[in-house]
Amino acid sequence: MQNRQILLKSRPEGWVTNENFGIDNCDVPELSEGQVMVRTVYLSVDPYLRGRMNDAKSYVPPFAIGGPIDSGIVGQVIESRFEGLSEGDYVLGRLPWALVSATNGKELYKLDPDIAPLSYYLGILGMPGQTAWVGLKAIGNLQEGENVFVSGASGAVGQVVGQIAKNMGCHVVGSAGGADKVAYLRELGFDGAIDYKATPNLFKAVAESCPNGVDVYFENVGGDILEAVINVLNFKARIAVCGYISAYNSTLADMPPGPRNLPILIGRGARMEGFIVSQYPKECAEWVQTGAQWLKEGKLKYRETIVEGLENAPNAFVDMLKGKNMGKMIVKVADE
Amino acid sequence: MQNRQILLKSRPEGWVTNENFGIDNCDVPELSEGQVMVRTVYLSVDPYLRGRMNDAKSYVPPFAIGGPIDSGIVGQVIESRFEGLSEGDYVLGRLPWALVSATNGKELYKLDPDIAPLSYYLGILGMPGQTAWVGLKAIGNLQEGENVFVSGASGAVGQVVGQIAKNMGCHVVGSAGGADKVAYLRELGFDGAIDYKATPNLFKAVAESCPNGVDVYFENVGGDILEAVINVLNFKARIAVCGYISAYNSTLADMPPGPRNLPILIGRGARMEGFIVSQYPKECAEWVQTGAQWLKEGKLKYRETIVEGLENAPNAFVDMLKGKNMGKMIVKVADE
Repeated sequence: MQNRQILLKSRPEGWVTNENFGIDNCDVPELSEGQVMVRTVYLSVDPYLRGRMNDAKSYVPPFAIGGPIDSGIVGQVIESRFEGLSEGDYVLGRLPWALVSATNGKELYKLDPDIAPLSYYLGILGMPGQTAWVGLKAIGNLQEGENVFVSGASGAVGQVVGQIAKNMGCHVVGSAGGADKVAYLRELGFDGAIDYKATPNLFKAVAESCPNGVDVYFENVGGDILEAVINVLNFKARIAVCGYISAYNSTLADMPPGPRNLPILIGRGARMEGFIVSQYPKECAEWVQTGAQWLKEGKLKYRETIVEGLENAPNAFVDMLKGKNMGKMIVKVADE
Repeated sequence: MQNRQILLKSRPEGWVTNENFGIDNCDVPELSEGQVMVRTVYLSVDPYLRGRMNDAKSYVPPFAIGGPIDSGIVGQVIESRFEGLSEGDYVLGRLPWALVSATNGKELYKLDPDIAPLSYYLGILGMPGQTAWVGLKAIGNLQEGENVFVSGASGAVGQVVGQIAKNMGCHVVGSAGGADKVAYLRELGFDGAIDYKATPNLFKAVAESCPNGVDVYFENVGGDILEAVINVLNFKARIAVCGYISAYNSTLADMPPGPRNLPILIGRGARMEGFIVSQYPKECAEWVQTGAQWLKEGKLKYRETIVEGLENAPNAFVDMLKGKNMGKMIVKVADE
């Protein structure tokens, strides 16, 4: 069997392109005691991976030039030297973008394909869904009936944020780029939806769609929308800073300016807090339970854009950063 | 007896000037039951008053055009129709900038002139000192031995922030404008002091003076120094946003851009929180005790710039906003 993998060929300066990636034939790995061999079924492309392409100190080490890209992957065990997993089991793990990988069995999470479609473990029930829950609950301390704003609202995280908040009886407004995305937000039950690409005055649009202000802002984007939402923050408002995709492909020199109206935080006693979902394992586990239950009860909708073929993963990643996906972007590497 | 008072003549557009104020002769007020007559001894000019000159919704209502300016005042009771206060008592209250005022006795706080010089109740033991304590403790959750940065470090609040942190065994670095201010910070025992006016590369200066990063940043200024400190925040760092004096005299159109590097908050799980000292009465009372005790033990130094004469209050206020004061700016209206 021939294996293939995606590598980081060069570090992007500014916008990442397909040219920053390479694809190589490589050997099927050897299996050690305690390891399992996994064939990749779905791989996840996520905004945070852009940060790992830079040579910068962060909470996860950067990808090495010439080394593999890795991310969340759903796969199937094809050979096991680990007691807890057998051939045929579906698993979730952080694995390289390859057709086949060998990894320690204890670093994999066995999936139940009856609870939800397998790809959902990379999205609504996986890291993005957990991120939505952690940001709203652990960081935002969201209470029933509050006023919520979410940017990047139709994305992997944003669509879950909005629905959690609606399920908690909140007034929810989201921003996204494009008429189809805004229509999707309305379909999800959002009380307001702003197409930032088609709105000449974001300040006005945000103010009008949030007549009672904003108590919790779930930030995925940064830039102009952040400034517009800060303007309408309520007293003791919380901003959960999950992402800042507007700046991910900038060098420091051309980084967009930050919000001019930060002094507003003072008079409103408001808080802005960044977070990394992996720091909140208790809440993550809580979400897997809650999310699965809500899915079963029909209380959550979910959309994915699925691209086929390992070789198309770099392009899917770049497209996702440009906002071309609707919902969670997934690469299907092989049939289930 | 002739009374005089300072009025708001016009709202400033951008920088406030003396022309925005007027001074008028006026009557000595009538005294109602429950009120006392107070002659002003010291009045406080504070950065937050600049916000009250704008016609903007905030946590305190704006000054009215043609109406009096008020702020923290130390005065002496010259006539009393309130049971708890007698002629000769020194009091602290929020009073108009006038030679004499009548006010409800229950809104005044009786001062003990033996604990500290009377003017200290407008500074180190008053609102600015309480602000330092609340920001570090209630917002910053400062722990012994952490790494602290404070901007506007030689000002009314900043000089207290640095000394509280030093008394808690912290590594403390401050920024201020001018060689004399920086020399004062060294005298106070700061581990590092940056003259932002004379430093060509703030990023480098901040990074070099904070070799172990920053756990708590006490923000009085905003602008470039905020961006430079965000760069060196530690994991789980806290920014207590007390003031943002760099932007107080800007209209929205010419507001300086915010920090470009806010995405750093994400990976470092860092928090930025604004606050109003009056929301934390428990901590304020705690500081009056702690501060008085530390003063007695020689654990706090304190500097003031005292300007004489009610008519010079507007100018003292403008000078303070321009950073011409060393330490707390006070106007002495009459002898004790």
